[in-house]
Parts: sequence; structure tokens; C-alpha cells
Amino acid sequence: MTDSITPLDDIAFSFQDRLVQVLTDARHRSRGVSAQYGQLWESLTRMATGGKLIRPRLLIDAHRGLGGGDQAAAVDAACAMQLLHIALVIHDDVIDNDTVRRGEANISGEFASDAMRRGAGRREAHTWGDATALLGGDLMLTLAHSLLARLDIDDAKRRAILDIFDDTVFQSAAGEHSDVWLSLHLEEPRSQEVLEMAGQKTAVYSFQAPLLIAAVLAGATSTLTAELADIAAQIGVVYQLRDDVLGLFGDERVTGKSTFSDLREGKETLLIAFARSDPSWAEVHALFGDRMLSTADGHRLRNVIEESGALVFVESIISARCEDLYRLIREASLPTALSTQLIELTSDCNRRTA
Amino acid sequence: MTDSITPLDDIAFSFQDRLVQVLTDARHRSRGVSAQYGQLWESLTRMATGGKLIRPRLLIDAHRGLGGGDQAAAVDAACAMQLLHIALVIHDDVIDNDTVRRGEANISGEFASDAMRRGAGRREAHTWGDATALLGGDLMLTLAHSLLARLDIDDAKRRAILDIFDDTVFQSAAGEHSDVWLSLHLEEPRSQEVLEMAGQKTAVYSFQAPLLIAAVLAGATSTLTAELADIAAQIGVVYQLRDDVLGLFGDERVTGKSTFSDLREGKETLLIAFARSDPSWAEVHALFGDRMLSTADGHRLRNVIEESGALVFVESIISARCEDLYRLIREASLPTALSTQLIELTSDCNRRTA
Repeated sequence: MTDSITPLDDIAFSFQDRLVQVLTDARHRSRGVSAQYGQLWESLTRMATGGKLIRPRLLIDAHRGLGGGDQAAAVDAACAMQLLHIALVIHDDVIDNDTVRRGEANISGEFASDAMRRGAGRREAHTWGDATALLGGDLMLTLAHSLLARLDIDDAKRRAILDIFDDTVFQSAAGEHSDVWLSLHLEEPRSQEVLEMAGQKTAVYSFQAPLLIAAVLAGATSTLTAELADIAAQIGVVYQLRDDVLGLFGDERVTGKSTFSDLREGKETLLIAFARSDPSWAEVHALFGDRMLSTADGHRLRNVIEESGALVFVESIISARCEDLYRLIREASLPTALSTQLIELTSDCNRRTA
Repeated sequence: MTDSITPLDDIAFSFQDRLVQVLTDARHRSRGVSAQYGQLWESLTRMATGGKLIRPRLLIDAHRGLGGGDQAAAVDAACAMQLLHIALVIHDDVIDNDTVRRGEANISGEFASDAMRRGAGRREAHTWGDATALLGGDLMLTLAHSLLARLDIDDAKRRAILDIFDDTVFQSAAGEHSDVWLSLHLEEPRSQEVLEMAGQKTAVYSFQAPLLIAAVLAGATSTLTAELADIAAQIGVVYQLRDDVLGLFGDERVTGKSTFSDLREGKETLLIAFARSDPSWAEVHALFGDRMLSTADGHRLRNVIEESGALVFVESIISARCEDLYRLIREASLPTALSTQLIELTSDCNRRTA
């Protein structure tokens, strides 16, 4: 994702300042509890203030684009969206048993390694790493709620934002739950189900919640708000489909993730749903979801997927969805600045390489 | 815990009605997502509305005892405390890898068994059970925050309650984190550290938060509030010490938990801290924290602990703490009805068998 969606650096700056500020008090207090708890809060702060900050930037830009004037509330809501993102990412890693994210040790990995260096056995160290990450996610989720509960705006708006946020957690948990369920392969998923799951798991909190909260803060009309919800859902689909393609066919040096890890996990995507209908799938289906998948078998499986036409099919879907989106955005009753931003966001989601 | 602390059944009744009500909307919507998500919400509802309801009852009773008049807000805050309890219990089970609680399958156990019945492998089923429980905890934590953020009371009181709640999550996570850290046995804990950890992990959210929130709602003086905080911390110690004793020497048919599970987990308690200083500990110390501990070795280990004098020592500490507490409660500037309730609560915490 390029920086083009946030031209005004001062706003991004005040957002990051505020995020550091809301984490500082707890970080200081945590050192008094134990060295380990202090270390957890340091890691959480690093995670929360790093990364591409797509969600908070989207909320702040949309709020400004819609003519909203409550910059302080927008910044706090943006912090909450970033903290929710961190909480979900951390818990997703615990669920997937991952110890690495974007090429670096995540919280589980960092704390497990530390414990092993200090003499803990592998199993105990792993339990410690996962426990630390699970609690870290709870703490970030709590801080997100805490910011929204204290928004200094009129009561009706605050309640509307709380409604959006609560529904976002409900949907995100539902999407994650479906994702894990589908990876059990107890039933063959329909393509529609796979897309819905991805939308719930990622699009709702990444695009819909920031846009809808910005709309409430800026006092947007219900027509405009409905248009934004629709656009957000469609951007989410593009984002997710690109994610699936990068997961299997991306550049590992850029994504920081093995192109076999989705295959080992047995992750159900539109690519897989398409490949399943190819006759040659039968030869490789036992490899899909095999945690010990070798490099050679990984290449074989990926070739079958590509040769089934799945990659071409999904790329064509992404293209068509982007064209639909550009039209949808142009035809919506949005202020020009926001239209431009959303078109760039769509394009970034499509063309991203990591 | 007997029912003696809540003489007025109508209040307990309205609390449970409200709890069912706040869970109903999400439960209904979850069925539309998937059968599995619907099942999760059913399990969460069963857990949240069952059990001894110590924390919500304490909050409601204390609010009334302090002369508070905002019954609706007290009921909502009480629901939030119960939901936080459920969230912490669920996540504690995930961290401890437990699939059984009080003799019955917990969420992890229930969902893992279901998946195995449907043909999933043991490892995948376990991942599914844990993922479901982790998400369930997030959902209960979110619902707790959600209730408090919407309390229909004056802004200063609402913010004071949010402060208490946020600090409670911070402390509970810190206590859980220390608990897991101590069970790695990378350093020998001091008794004081073990007691502090237990206080943070359980006492803060079980006793301190309900009493302090009740005090805010009822508009109690700062002197009275400080006294209640102190009493709550002391009740928490009694509760935890009794828990430790029941964990090792309780009646399994009543507690629903094996008297060897704390030993297998290597749980650091005041009993263990005392036993460590006995010469015979050296003969059995390798058994402590052994996940495969046999029944014979379990009996051997427990005998060493008992014969070290640890049980007698801890019972004498509990007795002394209770006497201190009775004095503290009598000497505090509390309304008589609340004093009586807190004395009964202390006694219940001491004499409980499960």
C-alpha cells in the first residue's frame, strides 16, 4: 500500500502521537508488575505503532473527506481501529499456531524463544508464548473499547459508533470461526461461503468499520452511509482475493511468508474452490492441508492449481470487481476528495505486493 | 458458596433476566452465520447464566447495602462483571490447555469432541476447540465493555467505572501472565510473589471491581471506597488460599477437578512455597510439574507437601486472615447490612468446598 491515500502528514503524525500516548500509561505501569509484563507491553506498543496503518488512515481521511470537523474524536476512533486490528492479528496467530509474522517473530515466537534461551523446554516455552500473545490480544481489545467508550461526542453518535464496533467484533469473530471450520475440511465449501467468510473476517473491520465510523462522526446522510458500506464490502473482497493470490503466488521476500503455508494450513480460498473442480485435483487433494508438505509436493500442488486455470480465473474476478468498484465510487454521492481516495485505495488493494 | 449473601431473590432474578436479554440478540443473529457460530453462542449463554454468580451478586448487594438507588445501572454493571468472569475463565482454560471445567466439557472440549465425532483428527479437532474458546472469550469481553460503555448514568460516574474496569483487565492479565511464568519454574518464586499473583489474577476482578463499581454507583465517600478496596483485597487472599487447598486436598466429587491437576501443571501456591523449604522436597521436586504424573507419584508428592506442615501452615494463615477481615469489616464505616453481607462472604470464601 503506498502512502498516496494520506497526503497530509500532520494528521498521520498526530494519530501516531496519540496512539503512543494511550499506550504509555499502561506500558509504564506494566514495568512495576514484572519484567515479563513490561516486555509484553513494549512488544504491543511496537506492533500497534508500526505497520501500514491502513485502517486508521482510512478513518481519518474519510472523516476529513466527508467534511467532518471533530479531528480529536476521529483520531481516537482511528486509534481504536488500529488496536482492534492488532488484537485480531495477535489472536489469529495464536489460533493458527504461527510464531512468525511478516518474516519476524511475533509475540508467541518472541516470548517462546526467550523462555527457551532461559532453559524452558520447547512445550512449556510454546505455552508461555501463546499465553502471552492471548493476553496481549485481550489487552489491545480492551484498550480499543476503552477509547471508544470515552469519545467526547454527543451521546447518540457515541452509541452509534459503539454499535458499529460491537457488530464489527461479532462479524470478525464469525469470519475467523468459519475460516478455522473450513480448514477442518469436514464439508466441501461453496465459493460463496469462502468469499463471505473472507469478507467477515477481514473486510468488515478493515474497511467497513473505519468508513462507517467516519460517516457517523462527520454526520453523513443515511444514503451516503449505505453507499459507503457497499463500497467497503467490495473493497474488502478485492483485498482478500489479492491476499489469496499473494499467499500462493507472491514473492516470499516481499510478503515475508512462505508460499506453501496456506497450502499446509489447508486454507480454503476461491483459488482452491476453483481448482477442486479440475480433474487433476484428485491426484493432489491429499497434499492439501498436509502440515508436513514437502517443497517438491508444494510445487506440484501449486502447479495443479495454476494449470486448472484458478489463477487466471481469480485475476479476472479481481479485475472485474475493481471496474465495478470504480463505477460504484464514481456514481455514489461522495465528495470528490473522498472518491479519489477510495479509488486509490481500491487500486492499492489490487496492486499491492505484500 | 451458599445463597445467604443474596436474600432478595427478585434482584437476582432481574439480573439473570437482563443477562439473558443482552445475550439474546447476538445469539439469534449467530444462527444466521453458521450452525457452529450459533452453537458457540448457545454455549456462551449457558456458561454466562450458570454458576454461582458471586461477582454480580456482590455488586448488586453492595450497591443496595450502600444505599444506591440506580438499580438498572447496578444490574448492567453486574452483568458486565459476570461476562468478564466468563471471558477470563474461558481464556484461562485455553492457556492451561484444559478441556474440562467442574467435571464437564468446557467450550474447547465440547467443540473438539464434536469435530472428532464428525471425523476430524485429534490435532485439528483440538485446534478447532481452542479457536472457538478463544473467540468466545473475545466475544464475552466485548459484551462486558459494551454494557459499561452504555451505562445510562452521569458522565463522571461512567468514566470512573470505565477506569475501574480497564484497570481490572490490566491487573487480571498481569496476574495470569505471572501465573504462567511461575509455572515455567525458571526462577524460584517468593511466597509474597505467589500471593500477589493470586491477588491480581482473581481477587481484583472477583471482589475489588464489584465493590468499587458499586461504591461509584452509590456515590460512596472516598474513605468508604478505600476501606472497601482493602477489604476486597483481603477477601481475595482468603478465596485464593482456600482455592489452593481445595486444589490439592479437596473432594474431587465436589470440586469436579482432579487433586493432581495443579501438581501436574506445576502451579505455584503458598502450599508449594512452604513445602519447598522442607528437606524431603528434594526427593519429589522432579515430580512437580510433570504432566504425566502417575497416581502413585501424585500421592507421594501430596504426602510430602502435607507432612512438611504446609497444609497446617496455610490453614492457620487462612484463619488469621479471616479474623483480621472480620475486625476490618466491623471497624469500617460500612452500613450494617453491607457489613453483615461481607462477613458472610468472607465466611463463605473460607468454608466453601467447591
